[in-house]
Amino acid sequence: NKEFSFEEHPHRRYNPLTGEWVMVSPHRSKRPWQGQVEDMEEEKRLKHDPDCYLCAGNTRVGGEKNPEYTDTYVFTNDFSALLSDTPEGSFSKGGLLKAESERGMARVVCFSPRHDLTIPEMEVAAIRKVVDLWAKEYEDLGKKEFINYVQIFENKGATMGCSNPHPHGQIWAEETVPVEPAKKQVQQLAYWKENGTSLLTDYLKIELESGERILFENEHFVGLVPFWAVWPFEAMIVPKRHVARITDLTDAERDAFADAYKQLGIMYDNLFEISFPYSAGIHQAPTDGKAHEEWHMHMMFYPPLLRSATVKKFMVGYEMLANPQRDITAEQAAARLRVLSKEHYKSKRN
Amino acid sequence: NKEFSFEEHPHRRYNPLTGEWVMVSPHRSKRPWQGQVEDMEEEKRLKHDPDCYLCAGNTRVGGEKNPEYTDTYVFTNDFSALLSDTPEGSFSKGGLLKAESERGMARVVCFSPRHDLTIPEMEVAAIRKVVDLWAKEYEDLGKKEFINYVQIFENKGATMGCSNPHPHGQIWAEETVPVEPAKKQVQQLAYWKENGTSLLTDYLKIELESGERILFENEHFVGLVPFWAVWPFEAMIVPKRHVARITDLTDAERDAFADAYKQLGIMYDNLFEISFPYSAGIHQAPTDGKAHEEWHMHMMFYPPLLRSATVKKFMVGYEMLANPQRDITAEQAAARLRVLSKEHYKSKRN
Ligand SMILES: O=P(O)(O)O[C@H]1O[C@H](CO)[C@@H](O)[C@H](O)[C@H]1O
Ligand SMILES: O=P(O)(O)O[C@H]1O[C@H](CO)[C@@H](O)[C@H](O)[C@H]1O
Repeated sequence: NKEFSFEEHPHRRYNPLTGEWVMVSPHRSKRPWQGQVEDMEEEKRLKHDPDCYLCAGNTRVGGEKNPEYTDTYVFTNDFSALLSDTPEGSFSKGGLLKAESERGMARVVCFSPRHDLTIPEMEVAAIRKVVDLWAKEYEDLGKKEFINYVQIFENKGATMGCSNPHPHGQIWAEETVPVEPAKKQVQQLAYWKENGTSLLTDYLKIELESGERILFENEHFVGLVPFWAVWPFEAMIVPKRHVARITDLTDAERDAFADAYKQLGIMYDNLFEISFPYSAGIHQAPTDGKAHEEWHMHMMFYPPLLRSATVKKFMVGYEMLANPQRDITAEQAAARLRVLSKEHYKSKRN
Repeated sequence: NKEFSFEEHPHRRYNPLTGEWVMVSPHRSKRPWQGQVEDMEEEKRLKHDPDCYLCAGNTRVGGEKNPEYTDTYVFTNDFSALLSDTPEGSFSKGGLLKAESERGMARVVCFSPRHDLTIPEMEVAAIRKVVDLWAKEYEDLGKKEFINYVQIFENKGATMGCSNPHPHGQIWAEETVPVEPAKKQVQQLAYWKENGTSLLTDYLKIELESGERILFENEHFVGLVPFWAVWPFEAMIVPKRHVARITDLTDAERDAFADAYKQLGIMYDNLFEISFPYSAGIHQAPTDGKAHEEWHMHMMFYPPLLRSATVKKFMVGYEMLANPQRDITAEQAAARLRVLSKEHYKSKRN
């Protein structure tokens, strides 16, 4: 009679931040792959590309010209999914057809004027400027009466639907708290009420004690593969102190955030020695004017690759219709990432 | 002062089956696309491919030989994500790290011995055999004491992680009701208790009256783009009669189901004149021995393409971290699909 082991047997894990489960099939990574492979060839990029609409001094589709910016630059998306002048309105039929207008704003954040860099290749001091700009945008957008949630995110790589390799991210700010952070709010609030500590404070304690899923830590931040990770190499960056939002970070914590962002990026790039694609974003307190003591801000990283630079995990079929599923365990993923060099593979090439 | 119109303005729509919302940005489809394009070249396929592990008479990776089947064929996946002999067990730490063993089975369903066909190119009578096999599998798997939910699904096309073009689907059956059907159960049960009718009975009434999102109907089934669709050309097939599970369909209803499956497939293929990729699957009552009168079975289709045969919708960044989002309205999608020929584009070429 064998004993259940989660290194070996199919099981479900619970995500206390969302209240949902992920299915884990550790034995399944052995299956052969005959499906689609990604094109991951990396072209040598210019420092300034005259055809890039994000490079300094170039003209965008809308006719506007980018300034000669020297660190970060932010502007309102020329094709925003959300608009600030949407008229109010709603529609309902039998409680089954329900729609509501949604006001908001979409911003584009250039991380650097250098077209050929990415976060892991930038200096920590330069990344710190990105953190500062995020904080300023969170504050400015959040202050607007019609903005109750600010989603900061980055799509990296063509595999992730990113249509321009210039290092940049986006911010979508809107009236309503979207589905994912709304789930996390419910769960964190329940935990806070019951325990008087933030969910992630207690979670970090357990993780730091065990060490099994830790990727790195610096003075103020921890990088880890969450126990309930869905994507093969999913990771999160969490401040050690219970902080609800980016604007509450101290000066030293902002530096540590920039450092953690870079450290994780280097691990990712070193895994398959390519610029590792992912979607990443910050989950934090809504900007509805309430204190939201239950919130403990954190940044999530969802990378699609599974076996190699060219074979990704397809979240299709069972995953779309039934339940998220993964083929390697969080512990296996953490073990593979943790041992990688702290130096970016490109810097060793030179 | 403009009035809110959901053909024009960003808004959110409610999905009464899951209780979640989708963000709709109708104006956004105008943005230029410079991102990744899919490789959609269609190779001419053999009727029988000696290298295909799903073709009749061929040997699979595990060493087993497929029989000389003449219509459908089902077998247990050689690389199942779920296994029936998983030992029971669970793990918990502070309520924050929680895992439970999960027993189950994964089956592969070949739709036809013909390697070169897909559902829309098959005869309705042949598709009916697929429906019958699904019903038999739902019954047989569902009867097992450790199976409480049976997820029938199809991944079509390499874009959808399908690693073999041979027409086939899968069935994953397991102990627990997965996240997606679990949400639908909660919502349908609440509706049933409050109204004494199934949610989808009332929804179909509204849709058939308006006609705006209807794709087609036959005697027993309706094909439509749901008001709350997430994927650009998402669609669903719903039996007109309130039926909780596939095994409750009458003989005539099974024929109508096969016909609807084919009709939708033809529309899809005709849209861009390619074999349209999607993940599809049936949501229906759990197999936990209860009546589940609240359930109204339906089949969902999630296709990834947005603008053309090669440009898909990327559910990344904002969508992964915050909220599903779409760029054309459900009404626009339905209008485009509805006018397409009822003949498959390939049949016109011959
Ligand atoms: O089982 P297959 O076809 O090899 O694999 C495909 O379908 C599965 C079920 O939806 C997914 O888990 C895989 O990611 C996908 O590649
Ligand atoms: O805004 P972009 O970079 O053109 O577009 C990308 O990110 C958006 C926000 O996550 C998504 O809605 C798009 O599907 C994706 O292609």
